[in-house]
Amino acid sequence: MAHSRSDTATKPAEVRKKKRYQSLADDMAESIRTGVLRPGDRLPSVRNTCVSRGVSPSTVFQAYYLLEARGLIQARERSGYFVSTEARRMAPEPERLSEPRDESLSLDVSKLVFEILDATMKHDVVPFGSAFPSPLHFPLRRLGQALAASAQALDPWSTVDDLTPGNLALRRQIALRYLAAGMHVHADDIVITNGALEALNLCLAAVTRPGDAVVVESPTFYAALQSLERMGLEVVEVPTHPREGIDLLALEHALERHRPKACWLMTNFQNPLGSLMPDYKKRALVDLLARHAVPLIEDDVYGELYFGDHRPAPAKAYDRHGMVLHCSSFSKNLAPGYRIGWAAPGRYTSEVARQKLTSTLSASIPAQLALASYLERGGFDKHLRKLRHALGTQRDVLAQAVGHFFPTGTKATRPMGGYFLWVELPESCDALTIHRQALELGVSCAPGPIFSSSRAFSNCIRLNYGHYWDARAEDGVAILGRLARRQCER
Amino acid sequence: MAHSRSDTATKPAEVRKKKRYQSLADDMAESIRTGVLRPGDRLPSVRNTCVSRGVSPSTVFQAYYLLEARGLIQARERSGYFVSTEARRMAPEPERLSEPRDESLSLDVSKLVFEILDATMKHDVVPFGSAFPSPLHFPLRRLGQALAASAQALDPWSTVDDLTPGNLALRRQIALRYLAAGMHVHADDIVITNGALEALNLCLAAVTRPGDAVVVESPTFYAALQSLERMGLEVVEVPTHPREGIDLLALEHALERHRPKACWLMTNFQNPLGSLMPDYKKRALVDLLARHAVPLIEDDVYGELYFGDHRPAPAKAYDRHGMVLHCSSFSKNLAPGYRIGWAAPGRYTSEVARQKLTSTLSASIPAQLALASYLERGGFDKHLRKLRHALGTQRDVLAQAVGHFFPTGTKATRPMGGYFLWVELPESCDALTIHRQALELGVSCAPGPIFSSSRAFSNCIRLNYGHYWDARAEDGVAILGRLARRQCER
Repeated sequence: MAHSRSDTATKPAEVRKKKRYQSLADDMAESIRTGVLRPGDRLPSVRNTCVSRGVSPSTVFQAYYLLEARGLIQARERSGYFVSTEARRMAPEPERLSEPRDESLSLDVSKLVFEILDATMKHDVVPFGSAFPSPLHFPLRRLGQALAASAQALDPWSTVDDLTPGNLALRRQIALRYLAAGMHVHADDIVITNGALEALNLCLAAVTRPGDAVVVESPTFYAALQSLERMGLEVVEVPTHPREGIDLLALEHALERHRPKACWLMTNFQNPLGSLMPDYKKRALVDLLARHAVPLIEDDVYGELYFGDHRPAPAKAYDRHGMVLHCSSFSKNLAPGYRIGWAAPGRYTSEVARQKLTSTLSASIPAQLALASYLERGGFDKHLRKLRHALGTQRDVLAQAVGHFFPTGTKATRPMGGYFLWVELPESCDALTIHRQALELGVSCAPGPIFSSSRAFSNCIRLNYGHYWDARAEDGVAILGRLARRQCER
Repeated sequence: MAHSRSDTATKPAEVRKKKRYQSLADDMAESIRTGVLRPGDRLPSVRNTCVSRGVSPSTVFQAYYLLEARGLIQARERSGYFVSTEARRMAPEPERLSEPRDESLSLDVSKLVFEILDATMKHDVVPFGSAFPSPLHFPLRRLGQALAASAQALDPWSTVDDLTPGNLALRRQIALRYLAAGMHVHADDIVITNGALEALNLCLAAVTRPGDAVVVESPTFYAALQSLERMGLEVVEVPTHPREGIDLLALEHALERHRPKACWLMTNFQNPLGSLMPDYKKRALVDLLARHAVPLIEDDVYGELYFGDHRPAPAKAYDRHGMVLHCSSFSKNLAPGYRIGWAAPGRYTSEVARQKLTSTLSASIPAQLALASYLERGGFDKHLRKLRHALGTQRDVLAQAVGHFFPTGTKATRPMGGYFLWVELPESCDALTIHRQALELGVSCAPGPIFSSSRAFSNCIRLNYGHYWDARAEDGVAILGRLARRQCER
């Protein structure tokens, strides 16, 4: 089965459901990409656009916010919106669905991933291959104070009472964040875990048995592949759009053909693509999976790192049957190294808690208390605003540097959140070679083949923009670009 | 296969290897048990015993230390050793090997265990059924200070650098403790985990695949059974002596017949028996397993909680082939709730580290730093002395209360460490009934059937003496005793 068409071209039903502001934003992005609107050009006024498109002012504003979040336009005070000067200098976005083989496969990728990650972990390397944002982005001092205070006031019995499912105050704070996002998840339906990775693994263990097939995106986060491999599960990789996430038609086909026992997806700012499923698509996803009685394990660790004007809802928001096992953590947005994550596993909550009790018993209790206390005092949202602003800026800078240094024909995603850029090099480029050569020159990148079971994406790399930009980073992109250009000239 | 003989009667080779002081102590214990020596009697002087037994003074002293640690004799200053007044009031020790079925079985015990544990976790219950010692035994204030200091001085990069295998300073401190126990385990051969339970599970995952058989003691810690069940492994339960641990002849038979891929054993103060394998037997165990190329997963969480004069060596001390995966933690002896444990997995270290990376990524870093700092400053050994003294005293008090309140025919182990007493009630008693009735009266106990795959040990209960003794505890034992007596009279 070849999925060589663009996502939107083949799905009139989905296009119909696409919100007006999204269509408007897409049209304008196309105008910028094709040069109809050039850097520095003023965008049509909101009033004119309302008239010409027959839409409301709020629709136009939403479209402009979206374009701003994507780094394509900039607001100037009292003057309206302008095409950003960097817009044309960025590489164009990839637009085609991935084309994984339509198979259910046992896995043998973990060793390659480890070889590459081991090399990437070195300290003196420019960390474009890293999976983590810079720890300097986080309020570790304030967290330390919260930790100090709660450790010294520790009720000894909390070392027993706060074992799995976890400290109640922390679970309440997490429930409050769900509520703020318009979702009703009760504290009793939350299981605190050692980071999101454990949450995802426990959920997977709760709904599968060895030999079962599990659907993932293509490309997908290598840790998902490693988990499936470790647990003796088969993988079904499903075509995925670089901007809008997994293809629902292809997913439906996979559900019918491979009868998977679970889907493990990232709906918000997918790793490695940075794709963001639109709301209407998330709703359709949840409905589709419910019809097939397949639980959705939703990895939402980047959900709070949005560059738009609101936190994108997780698919869990559309779950009416308790079939979405929502997993997240504080590791990427607040407290790296504390290893506090959670699952909200819907109807599987007690099974996930039992998996937790028999595998690692409980998450660290001082860390739970510290986060509960930090969240109760407030300041998380303020920190998040700062973090999102920093990441958004770093995305723009990296995207421009890629546009500048990389060979013609390079495409790069323009993620609306998270901290990963997915770069498609010209087809003659070999990412594993670039990875190896770049490491020798002190620069890391995450080569495409670690994101698929079949070592596909051989001309792709994932770049991390979660670190502060400096001359070393600039040089690092220049080195990657030079290596890629050399590959093109072979 | 029936194992109805006593451990020592059938193993001349092992008896020969038994140290002289152990034989001497056993003989004296027998004299006390049979009334030849009565409470308050003075023991023969060291000099006389040397002459009559033809042994050195140090052998006699070692034997007397052992008897003192077992609560059978007491030293009085300048007067020598006397049979302790409580010795006869304690229930006799069980002496027979367990007799599990000689089968490799898939497991279905986890649900029963959870039902019972859930009931036991209630706060207002006398916690004889608890798996934890009282948190009031631990230096949580000093740990909190260490945590506070290290959290506030946190190097942000440690949130990345101290991920698995874990903080180097902590691994060095653990390596130093191995060294103090006469063992050479390098910091590089240690993987920090979320408590010992995760260490054990990672080791199990590193050396088995679903469907493999794993040897455990009979009875065994229920979490081992739950782990095997969760991972789709089969269990082979091997006859175990209440004082000296797993029976090596029976183990050899099991190795030949069932070809297990691992043994999961507790050599020091086994849960639930409290048995302690003598050194010569540990050495023989390691040699036997090496000959069969079967790795030993050694759960040593109670090793530091000895009542004798030195820490008993783990089997790992006799490992020459890297086949012993030694697991322990600070949860039972220093820092409950911190969830910091470790594995020293010998030749399987890198595989265990990879299992850790793909399942929970890392242990909580502030907790690791706090423990490293606490251990560096010293004070752990002083705390341990205090803890051991408290537990030893509590063991004596509980053992006496059991002797006083429980029906004639009751036997109870006299563990030399840890905090569990294993009580064999008369055969007509039903532990599950007692458990249920006692809970209604506000007293918990751990009924024998949760410690075997076949729900054996129906007349046994495990009692926790890790909590401070008070009137409530006294009443609790009285209630258990009354319920047991009522069962006898049926």
